[in-house]
Amino acid sequence: MSVDFLAELQRREQWVVQYFSDPRFRERFEPEHLRRGVYLYLERPGKRLRPAVLLFSCGAVGGDEQMALPAAAGIELFHTWTLVHDDVIDHDAKRRGGPTVHEAGRRMALDELDLGPDESDDYGNDLAILAGDVQQGWAVCLFAELAARGVPAEVVLSLIARLESHVLNELIRGELLDVQFANMPIDGLTEDTILDMLWLKTGVLYEFAAMAGAMIGLATPDLADPTVQAIGQFAGDCGLAFQLQDDILGLVGDERKLGKPVGSDIREGKGTLVVYHAFRHATDSQREFLEQVLGNRQASTDHVRRATSLLRDLGGVEYTNALARDYVARAVPRLDGLAASPSKELLLAWADFMIGRKF
Amino acid sequence: MSVDFLAELQRREQWVVQYFSDPRFRERFEPEHLRRGVYLYLERPGKRLRPAVLLFSCGAVGGDEQMALPAAAGIELFHTWTLVHDDVIDHDAKRRGGPTVHEAGRRMALDELDLGPDESDDYGNDLAILAGDVQQGWAVCLFAELAARGVPAEVVLSLIARLESHVLNELIRGELLDVQFANMPIDGLTEDTILDMLWLKTGVLYEFAAMAGAMIGLATPDLADPTVQAIGQFAGDCGLAFQLQDDILGLVGDERKLGKPVGSDIREGKGTLVVYHAFRHATDSQREFLEQVLGNRQASTDHVRRATSLLRDLGGVEYTNALARDYVARAVPRLDGLAASPSKELLLAWADFMIGRKF
Repeated sequence: MSVDFLAELQRREQWVVQYFSDPRFRERFEPEHLRRGVYLYLERPGKRLRPAVLLFSCGAVGGDEQMALPAAAGIELFHTWTLVHDDVIDHDAKRRGGPTVHEAGRRMALDELDLGPDESDDYGNDLAILAGDVQQGWAVCLFAELAARGVPAEVVLSLIARLESHVLNELIRGELLDVQFANMPIDGLTEDTILDMLWLKTGVLYEFAAMAGAMIGLATPDLADPTVQAIGQFAGDCGLAFQLQDDILGLVGDERKLGKPVGSDIREGKGTLVVYHAFRHATDSQREFLEQVLGNRQASTDHVRRATSLLRDLGGVEYTNALARDYVARAVPRLDGLAASPSKELLLAWADFMIGRKF
Repeated sequence: MSVDFLAELQRREQWVVQYFSDPRFRERFEPEHLRRGVYLYLERPGKRLRPAVLLFSCGAVGGDEQMALPAAAGIELFHTWTLVHDDVIDHDAKRRGGPTVHEAGRRMALDELDLGPDESDDYGNDLAILAGDVQQGWAVCLFAELAARGVPAEVVLSLIARLESHVLNELIRGELLDVQFANMPIDGLTEDTILDMLWLKTGVLYEFAAMAGAMIGLATPDLADPTVQAIGQFAGDCGLAFQLQDDILGLVGDERKLGKPVGSDIREGKGTLVVYHAFRHATDSQREFLEQVLGNRQASTDHVRRATSLLRDLGGVEYTNALARDYVARAVPRLDGLAASPSKELLLAWADFMIGRKF
């Protein structure tokens, strides 16, 4: 491979982080607790894959990546506010190895405002709701800044309207369906339902990232432009493949890489394709055992370990892995119409990276 | 007065409600529970004062109100999503005489999803957080629709950037300070702090409504344009005056008009100017009595009634009323530079309406 994918990824991460860190943004957020909430996830290390896809896509259609940089920062921020609100909804205390925003807010209330335990719980949730709200607005403002870099105002408006209607609505639909499904038995799901959910929760935003990069590069407001569509479908399918892999890691990966305790996806009873596939191929007694452990927050370490082995033995991991590779294999030819370029190579390397091929 | 203010207000309310009701919007929001959450407050009767100010301001600088209609709908929606999230934060079960969004969601979970009480509480909050999120996005999209009515794209981008940075950040700052102050004793406040909060929670959005109408009417992206500034300050000060009056009504108004139980502001211990002023003029024993009742959710009807009388007797109501009238009196001359027109008359009539003068 003639491009050094990881080095190029890291360069773009630095551009994006630098863009966020500009003091003219930081001073906008008051009081101090809100500012800390807004920056908490942005200041943690991360791969920033969505901004990278946006920038690579801009380059791959012949555009100038620097012109697209505000949108790259905007897409990361948009992703971030959805995480902040998701964490409140899921009552998760950890994210990427540190406290979630509402958990950090709870501690601010206990340590700095001397509030009691119940008031501190509320304060943490309030802070996270409000931090996510201002992050959504900030994301839109970052897109609006494209105009100052020479992107035509019509293109910018088209991007903002797409982000704040279709993309937002699909993401939120996925989140609410997730909440509804969490209260349903696993055999109430189908493979199609699970794949739809993965599309809503991950595919949609990657699709938009690539479309945005291409539209900026081509200076077109046209969402239906064939190049814009092709690159969007490529990225959306690779995003879905990534999520399939991520669900595998959530079940069988190690804690250090995940930033959350091993087995938490099992104790939560997350309705992944791995679990669904295993259920369909389990004997009655295996199914009974899985039903006992999945979604059981009190499950013992030993039971979690046995459930993990069973999911693997029943072929759920292998099946999901193969499906993820399929998605990427079908996505790659969508880029056939693009001229060869280092940016196109980076997009192809990214597709491999998304399903865990080594670099 | 040569304009029929109430009739003109009602006409604009109908335009705005009709704009929201377009099926092309309604079908965007899924699943069904989310759609119900998104439309809940929009379908309740309301005066829609913010859209009216936006439209009057557009007309008052010589613009075409029909061109500004998407922004009028957008400002109402922007106000609405902040209410949905505020209600979650304040744990309020009622708004404008009906259930709040999270309360309605809680009942959906109990009645339609057969969830238990705790899961239903969570579901209601989740639904309200997500409904507010998509409403924020929808509001931005409505502003983006201005371009299709001939508003220059640069003007639209300038409005969106202002709404999603300055206006949003000030509103959220007000909301978080409110949460922080709720845990502080009333004598930790000052008159300036209280007036700042009222500006953040009400003035800022009225200021923006008027600025937006004027910028659309003048086809300028320039927030610093003197006419835009003057009309914005006029509307912001009248908005603050309205909030002062509203706090009086919250303490001494009647239940039917308020849509919430009499005395709830007293039982919540809301730190209004009326209360602050009364505290400063109370004897030690009066202050002791007020401290016992204000913020005491178990306070008896009789104690609430005595506290209400005391707030009135100590001059808090009168003082706040006079201050509200002052704000409007100082706001009115800001419109001196505008040529006489029916729209200008409507703005002046609105200013009177905001402090409760009868029509």
